[in-house]
Amino acid sequence: MANIAVVLSGCGVFDGAEIHESVLTLLALEENHADYQCFAPDMDQYHVLNHMTGEEMNETRNVMVEASRISRGNIQPITQLDAKDFDGLIFPGGFGAAKNLCNFAIKGSECEVQADVLAAAKTFVVANKPIGFICIAPAMIPLIYGETAKLTIGTDQETAAAINAMGGEHISCPVDEFIVDETKKVVSTPAYMLAGNVLEAASGIRKLVAKVLELS
Amino acid sequence: MANIAVVLSGCGVFDGAEIHESVLTLLALEENHADYQCFAPDMDQYHVLNHMTGEEMNETRNVMVEASRISRGNIQPITQLDAKDFDGLIFPGGFGAAKNLCNFAIKGSECEVQADVLAAAKTFVVANKPIGFICIAPAMIPLIYGETAKLTIGTDQETAAAINAMGGEHISCPVDEFIVDETKKVVSTPAYMLAGNVLEAASGIRKLVAKVLELS
Repeated sequence: MANIAVVLSGCGVFDGAEIHESVLTLLALEENHADYQCFAPDMDQYHVLNHMTGEEMNETRNVMVEASRISRGNIQPITQLDAKDFDGLIFPGGFGAAKNLCNFAIKGSECEVQADVLAAAKTFVVANKPIGFICIAPAMIPLIYGETAKLTIGTDQETAAAINAMGGEHISCPVDEFIVDETKKVVSTPAYMLAGNVLEAASGIRKLVAKVLELS
Repeated sequence: MANIAVVLSGCGVFDGAEIHESVLTLLALEENHADYQCFAPDMDQYHVLNHMTGEEMNETRNVMVEASRISRGNIQPITQLDAKDFDGLIFPGGFGAAKNLCNFAIKGSECEVQADVLAAAKTFVVANKPIGFICIAPAMIPLIYGETAKLTIGTDQETAAAINAMGGEHISCPVDEFIVDETKKVVSTPAYMLAGNVLEAASGIRKLVAKVLELS
């Protein structure tokens, strides 16, 4: 049975992990008879947003503590994640991937990946084990791989240009498909970069998960 | 196209709506070509729990604001929910259903349903429109219907006894099935009262959603 690490970035699309994408990832892993363990960085979120109004709330929340809401309590700090224990890695999306796991939402093509996230992901690159990136999470691909890789965030030209400026090779992709870089074992799908509902997000995520498992 | 109201009780299994159950409900509605709108009470949560440790956090969070994380911002206060606008109603579970929507988790068989939740649900009872209850949410059935109704929360004897003491007619049910009271159009499924993973929860929720739609 394949064992996949899933890295969450909080709990909620605008300041954390996209909840539908996260749950659909776990569902698809189980549908494919894979096991999983969730991880997150043990650090403060970039900020906390009221999801009804979009306004910033005067609060501080911890990425890992909030992410554990999605994983029903079972989560580990990302400093404990190493490719030797897993067959693959998946990053669901949400703004948390671009605000907490890296700062692409703030700095665009000048962004950095959070140090512990980068270190954990690089163990999978070195081991040539597959990594799946959902929604905006592919913005981290050029920095994690340190060289060009085929990827997609859907069809948004501005976002694609920023990722290409970082060294990515963006390919437009519909919501129900994925892009794979077979050599590097990098898989990406647009999900809520394009999805209009849960079912559309599920279509691409199911295919991404199956491909990550095939490559593992 | 059927239009179903989904009432959320926060965001996180231990103090709010069970996230997997909530997302699986939305997914199943879309799989069955139904439309939906999420609602929640605009009030403080009973409490806020750290989902990693189970410990209470010194915070105040609003049920509707947190629930909007699950619905990606689109949510309405439950005071605006009326059966005239919908073909059915579904309550996902999580402790929020037993701490925020009613206080069954604190008072057991002496519990009350929150006034606005009760008023909204009763409009569906009066209109003889179906209501689906997931996980621990069926604890509200005797108070919403005011008379006995067939229901399930799975197989937990103590919880079942408390619900029977309130006037319910508990029937044991495996995780991948549901119990229906055809006359009252009440549907219930155990989900995470019994489920060991997302896939098990999905099996019963998919059947519950299909049955609610069939009765609508």
